[in-house]
Amino acid sequence: MNIADFLRKPFGCSRVLFLSVFAFVVLGGYSAFASEGAAHSVFVANNVWMLLATFLVFIMHLGFASLETGLTRSKNTVNILFKNTFIISAGILTYALMGFNLMYPGDFIGGGIFGFAGFGISAPAGAGGLIEYADGGYTYYTDFIFQAMFAATAATIVSGAVAERIKLSSFLIFATIFVAIVYPIAGSWKWGGGWLDQMGFYDFAGSTLVHSVGGWGGLVGAYLLGPRIGKYLASGAMRPIPGHSLPLLAIGVFLLWMGWFGFNGGSVLSADPELISLVIVTTSLAAAAGALGAAFTSWGTFKYPDLSMALNGVLAGLVGITAGADVVSPGEAVIIGLVAGIIVVFAVSFFDKIRIDDPVGAISVHLVCGIWGTLAVGIFGGPDFSFMVQLIGVLAYGVFTVVCAFIIFYAIKMAIGIRVSEEEERRGLDITEHGMESYPDFQAASEI
Amino acid sequence: MNIADFLRKPFGCSRVLFLSVFAFVVLGGYSAFASEGAAHSVFVANNVWMLLATFLVFIMHLGFASLETGLTRSKNTVNILFKNTFIISAGILTYALMGFNLMYPGDFIGGGIFGFAGFGISAPAGAGGLIEYADGGYTYYTDFIFQAMFAATAATIVSGAVAERIKLSSFLIFATIFVAIVYPIAGSWKWGGGWLDQMGFYDFAGSTLVHSVGGWGGLVGAYLLGPRIGKYLASGAMRPIPGHSLPLLAIGVFLLWMGWFGFNGGSVLSADPELISLVIVTTSLAAAAGALGAAFTSWGTFKYPDLSMALNGVLAGLVGITAGADVVSPGEAVIIGLVAGIIVVFAVSFFDKIRIDDPVGAISVHLVCGIWGTLAVGIFGGPDFSFMVQLIGVLAYGVFTVVCAFIIFYAIKMAIGIRVSEEEERRGLDITEHGMESYPDFQAASEI
Amino acid sequence: MNIADFLRKPFGCSRVLFLSVFAFVVLGGYSAFASEGAAHSVFVANNVWMLLATFLVFIMHLGFASLETGLTRSKNTVNILFKNTFIISAGILTYALMGFNLMYPGDFIGGGIFGFAGFGISAPAGAGGLIEYADGGYTYYTDFIFQAMFAATAATIVSGAVAERIKLSSFLIFATIFVAIVYPIAGSWKWGGGWLDQMGFYDFAGSTLVHSVGGWGGLVGAYLLGPRIGKYLASGAMRPIPGHSLPLLAIGVFLLWMGWFGFNGGSVLSADPELISLVIVTTSLAAAAGALGAAFTSWGTFKYPDLSMALNGVLAGLVGITAGADVVSPGEAVIIGLVAGIIVVFAVSFFDKIRIDDPVGAISVHLVCGIWGTLAVGIFGGPDFSFMVQLIGVLAYGVFTVVCAFIIFYAIKMAIGIRVSEEEERRGLDITEHGMESYPDFQAASEI
Repeated sequence: MNIADFLRKPFGCSRVLFLSVFAFVVLGGYSAFASEGAAHSVFVANNVWMLLATFLVFIMHLGFASLETGLTRSKNTVNILFKNTFIISAGILTYALMGFNLMYPGDFIGGGIFGFAGFGISAPAGAGGLIEYADGGYTYYTDFIFQAMFAATAATIVSGAVAERIKLSSFLIFATIFVAIVYPIAGSWKWGGGWLDQMGFYDFAGSTLVHSVGGWGGLVGAYLLGPRIGKYLASGAMRPIPGHSLPLLAIGVFLLWMGWFGFNGGSVLSADPELISLVIVTTSLAAAAGALGAAFTSWGTFKYPDLSMALNGVLAGLVGITAGADVVSPGEAVIIGLVAGIIVVFAVSFFDKIRIDDPVGAISVHLVCGIWGTLAVGIFGGPDFSFMVQLIGVLAYGVFTVVCAFIIFYAIKMAIGIRVSEEEERRGLDITEHGMESYPDFQAASEI
Repeated sequence: MNIADFLRKPFGCSRVLFLSVFAFVVLGGYSAFASEGAAHSVFVANNVWMLLATFLVFIMHLGFASLETGLTRSKNTVNILFKNTFIISAGILTYALMGFNLMYPGDFIGGGIFGFAGFGISAPAGAGGLIEYADGGYTYYTDFIFQAMFAATAATIVSGAVAERIKLSSFLIFATIFVAIVYPIAGSWKWGGGWLDQMGFYDFAGSTLVHSVGGWGGLVGAYLLGPRIGKYLASGAMRPIPGHSLPLLAIGVFLLWMGWFGFNGGSVLSADPELISLVIVTTSLAAAAGALGAAFTSWGTFKYPDLSMALNGVLAGLVGITAGADVVSPGEAVIIGLVAGIIVVFAVSFFDKIRIDDPVGAISVHLVCGIWGTLAVGIFGGPDFSFMVQLIGVLAYGVFTVVCAFIIFYAIKMAIGIRVSEEEERRGLDITEHGMESYPDFQAASEI
Repeated sequence: MNIADFLRKPFGCSRVLFLSVFAFVVLGGYSAFASEGAAHSVFVANNVWMLLATFLVFIMHLGFASLETGLTRSKNTVNILFKNTFIISAGILTYALMGFNLMYPGDFIGGGIFGFAGFGISAPAGAGGLIEYADGGYTYYTDFIFQAMFAATAATIVSGAVAERIKLSSFLIFATIFVAIVYPIAGSWKWGGGWLDQMGFYDFAGSTLVHSVGGWGGLVGAYLLGPRIGKYLASGAMRPIPGHSLPLLAIGVFLLWMGWFGFNGGSVLSADPELISLVIVTTSLAAAAGALGAAFTSWGTFKYPDLSMALNGVLAGLVGITAGADVVSPGEAVIIGLVAGIIVVFAVSFFDKIRIDDPVGAISVHLVCGIWGTLAVGIFGGPDFSFMVQLIGVLAYGVFTVVCAFIIFYAIKMAIGIRVSEEEERRGLDITEHGMESYPDFQAASEI
């Protein structure tokens, strides 16, 4: 008997019963299917958003490369570009080899301090290795690649601070260890569910976990290397060494700004419309306020409106908002960015004064404003956040990273040295380390 | 009695009744939930699309900065980059402070001419401040930030036309007022639902509202400033002043082309697949046709295929298609772009002839092709659009913007002057306004 | 009788029956609607993903332009930028005119060798011209524009290999024919469902269909043109001619890397979360492994770590993974990329040795690694893929493209010549072909 015959027959109660049950089962099935379909399509959209964010974080590496190249001399351009190409490449590979499983170990040892889920990556079996819909949702591989793009960032920040005088091979060794081991362990304490996460420490997208960690590493490196030749005169006076291409700097900063939409927007870990749009607004406002804060501070302090300061102000605002982009209001984002923009101008002067030579201002931008942004969550984030816990987190990351960076740099220094010879530094690392020039059509050997 | 027991019991009609009602209510609820779930997931996808468009419009600001820098001399590079960094920053902040609420006032006064919804932004209460699903959907914050990225564009267009001779502080004041007040009020007449919208004027993504408005501002500025020193010889003959870096120009134009996918694609205000894909096709075809139109026109008219013309042709095609990208066919898009590419070559010559010195061709690209694109909607758009109403719109925006720009520039001129001294112009604004050089490793003072 | 009255009345079985049927019909309708709604929202998300991929592939054209400019001399910069602007523009237009319908003809003639669906594009009638939901889904226009962005790539690859000595008009004619006819016919054999597709040949995103095809074209061009003046000394020794801007090279390669996320990610032809995230992971790992492979191979082989080799290694890895990005594991992707990075270093030396002068290494990157990647599918892809069939595909494309490219180049050579005069080459194509300089502020005539 087919459905048509069945429906044409006279109905008794039992038949009605059957129909009801049929309706219940079939329609319930349909409904459940449709409901699961809707969850699936949100999952698809989330995953698209997370990959878009991944691409944006990736392009930050071009941003860093352009910025660092622009702010240094043309005789070291090849060297900087080589280092940046190396870091993103080695970063992705080591993160696949071990970083991802160090940072998200699942199980911790020693009160949430250390854990490791094994070498390599492979999507978990079952349901295609998808993360459960309920969690907002994206795939295991999306999770890995988004986090991998983040990972290399911290080491890249170091490269700016130690530019123009570090030995290439020494830097490559340092950067590989830093990105493969130090950053993931540090990250696990909060994002991997470790002890600082359990304490209630908050760092939405990495003011501390990424930027301060990179900044501390840069501080140790710049301290151990000492200043570049020519930065301080015999008299002790500081002499600015201008970067060779401000268009490259501007390209770098605008790309970083765009990349930050992925850095912060992706850190929502879903495409939740309310949250991602709020985060993009707070991120944009803080960057804008940082630019104006630094521009006018430099205009007032020195007598000229300084382009590098305005652009570093953009980054200062971005680093500042990163810890709390999802928990502050637009107005608070403006304040956080503005303060970061003002801070960064004085921080640059401060490090110049204490003879920490940071060619691109990485320590001022990433370390100082990273600390500010993390503490700002304790100030503006509302009752869920504790200033003291934020401070503990800042200090814990500081101590851990400084100790690790010091040990690694010091070991390399003992083994093969970390600074190029005076002659190499004067001639430039492009010729001496790489045997090539960055602009052979235009280049006259510039020696300072 | 639990469900299992209930289902095992013998059924009477009342029980069947109960089951039926139960099925009705429960499954209806499931279905409604699933249906709402589907609407929600479209909402999520729409919001992702609108934010992607936002990021693309943002990167247009790097496009403009690169283009303007490339087409001007290296002695004014820092100055241009500073202005562009300032405009996007001040633009976002003033748009949050008042521009958004001037442009989308809700209520108008005086026949749809002026309205203001108050200072600041904050998501409306209820349902998370989301715009209703029925409207295609994205959040309040997404709406704000997408529009904010647009807002600064108009002022950036002005900066190209007045480059290499305007006083920095005068420009900053002009740009701030232009982006905070003039652009939003002009925009409200159409996009905010004002009098031109009520008349049936159509401007899909801003051939007039953004590009012509910027172009008119640039025309007034270039007229009041007069030409750069060296542009016209004592004999009256025009002398081209070549830009210092054509790679920067190319980077700028390609980034603008990509950014335009967000500018036009996002103006659909949803991720409606049919409409956004049509818009991306018409946008691409017009840009391509504009490039070839300008390349071959310049090749025929002068004796060489001119790279700057080909690249300005891309922009001409893009500006031309912007008013009607969603209502013309691919074939019509090619015609609109081709004509724009041809027009722009003659427009550049025309402004050179009447001694309006526009270093980057901004007036030819944005004003002239913006008018062409707006009128083209009346020609190609079909019976829903009136050529006369399009013309009225063009003229209304022209009168309003010229009057406003004139008043602002003139007031600044009276107060603090708008042009740098002859010596400053000869030495370049980088040294005199900012105390720094853009390419210190290569730069020999170039004076024209 | 309204619903409320109906529900309040005493129930008989017939009434229960009615309610049941009502529930069945109404809820079924709801459910179907909700289910269709879920399918629709996946469709929306897919379409967003495909357009995002389109934008990323578009920006590869800026990547190619930057890379080629950076690796050549500043006296030929305008020429290269003009060619790249022309190719993307002519590519999109000819693809709309005929390429799309040659590549996806629907019906084939001659055993799947040739077919043509007519001139022009227009969305098919019915259901808004949408591709069926069941197919993963995106619109006709999205399909066109994504494929159009691909199309110009093959011709762009040629432009790198023939740079610095080909006559502009000759190249424009070649490129137009290549992109309008040769590439689409070649593409139809696999992606259009032609004879190689029927044989089981696999090329996921175009290691062969795009990169080798472009590489073969470049090989023929470079062979027919002969080496640049100064590349080989009278003694026969090879003399490297360094590119004029390594920052431009780095910008180009990083943009290409990002663009490849769309090139490979979009080739999934839907936003299927598992597949796109796997593809982005394999693509990233291969690029990273390619960079390290080439960097260390050059470091070991020559005595310096070569930046151009590291960056070409990125591209080598990307070209290598492109054929099988969706069918290999992350570990296999690392091997494929690493081997590609090693191969590319030796390939560059090989072509230098046999006096094929390829200024940017396009043949080594796109042809050699394209072949490697296609064969790697036969090695690593599992039992569904045959090494022999892959080899047949590689050879078929080689023969077809070489014959076509040879005929076109040879006909142009006979008609108007393909190489500029010696004087033009020495002075540079910017001045002689375009009458303008790329960096007028800095440029001293560089002659080699």
